[in-house]
Amino acid sequence: MTIYEVENFPNPVRVRLALAEKNALDRVKFVPVDVMAGEHRSDSFRAINPDATVPCAELPDGSVIGRCTPITEYIDGAFEGTSLIGDTPLQRATTHMMNLRAEEGLLDAVGAYFHHATPGLGPDLETDQVPAWGLRQKARAQSTMRYFDGVLAKQPFVAGAVYSMADITLLAGLDFADLAGIEIDTDLTHLHAWREKVRARYQEN
Amino acid sequence: MTIYEVENFPNPVRVRLALAEKNALDRVKFVPVDVMAGEHRSDSFRAINPDATVPCAELPDGSVIGRCTPITEYIDGAFEGTSLIGDTPLQRATTHMMNLRAEEGLLDAVGAYFHHATPGLGPDLETDQVPAWGLRQKARAQSTMRYFDGVLAKQPFVAGAVYSMADITLLAGLDFADLAGIEIDTDLTHLHAWREKVRARYQEN
Ligand SMILES: N[C@@H](CCC(=O)N[C@@H](CS)C(=O)NCC(=O)O)C(=O)O
Ligand SMILES: N[C@@H](CCC(=O)N[C@@H](CS)C(=O)NCC(=O)O)C(=O)O
Repeated sequence: MTIYEVENFPNPVRVRLALAEKNALDRVKFVPVDVMAGEHRSDSFRAINPDATVPCAELPDGSVIGRCTPITEYIDGAFEGTSLIGDTPLQRATTHMMNLRAEEGLLDAVGAYFHHATPGLGPDLETDQVPAWGLRQKARAQSTMRYFDGVLAKQPFVAGAVYSMADITLLAGLDFADLAGIEIDTDLTHLHAWREKVRARYQEN
Repeated sequence: MTIYEVENFPNPVRVRLALAEKNALDRVKFVPVDVMAGEHRSDSFRAINPDATVPCAELPDGSVIGRCTPITEYIDGAFEGTSLIGDTPLQRATTHMMNLRAEEGLLDAVGAYFHHATPGLGPDLETDQVPAWGLRQKARAQSTMRYFDGVLAKQPFVAGAVYSMADITLLAGLDFADLAGIEIDTDLTHLHAWREKVRARYQEN
């Protein structure tokens, strides 16, 4: 499997963390895409991924999977190890629900703030800004953080008792918030504690 | 299982169509929510679904699943019948990818146009409009229709050879476009033909 990405960008990081959970980082090939130079909007990249975004995954049979959640679905089913989505219909539904809350409510909301209400990726790429929309989404991101603080006051992980795709998305969303300059209020103590705990999973020993 | 909804609203319809595919419409209880009167934003409804949207599903054990894709995940796993998402990791990933393209690119884009650039649900509920954002999303919806016309020129259904959750989302998105007054260009012949074919699945005999 080949992953087209920019290392450390907010969305591609979700795929790397999913692969890390499966101990499979060395079983895929990473191909860098020069997003800052607009390579993802070229005809040749759009022929691979019409969404013109990273990450996307290309399988040996030529199939292409775009977007983090579908790629994570693939990784979860194709690689061994504990499921990142769940084994029962209720677990799977709950993980997808919490993942969507973290994705739309935080990661994408921070992205909308970054791309619409800050210089974002710079004037050559940010040609279609709606600043008022970006500011609403900043407020949405902040309210999502508060929502997850309440969730994590009651359970160890975002979707319940076990670590899942939804934790990965929340972690990526908080890192993007740091990058975009959206503060994570200090009174969100459960969220901060969860973040330290989850970060420790990925620290080199 | 109880489904909180507004019958025929663009999102709840996705859950009804998923249940219809499983022949399970009579195995759930539908509870109407008075969205036009703002009931979904009340404290008592937010206690069930913090997203303050319909549909959401409540299971006999008290678990609540919000949002259409997670509810469809649950229905697909919990009820018998052909899978709406797929049986292999690649099928599941592909269905989720195409579903996201239909949801974000069409259904949600039409929703953003409707809520931000038209009177939407009326002045009492639409208190936070960003018209410029709504207009961009109208253009996005139109370009998504064109994208799916190309997809359906090459394969019978949205995610490939078989009917799936992604077809349901596209169908709901096109119906929402009608409602919001976004035209489906007549030259999108593959999209129109697919729509007639898919609608016929749900026609009473
Ligand atoms: N929801 C998408 C988001 C993908 C996305 O927006 N990726 C960013 C990089 S973090 C991108 O490609 N941006 C390109 C641009 O803004 O033009 C996913 O799940 O993959
Ligand atoms: N993406 C959500 C969308 C839910 C949604 O926006 N539902 C509409 C009804 S079609 C709603 O509740 N609107 C309430 C409002 O706009 O205040 C899902 O999958 O359920």
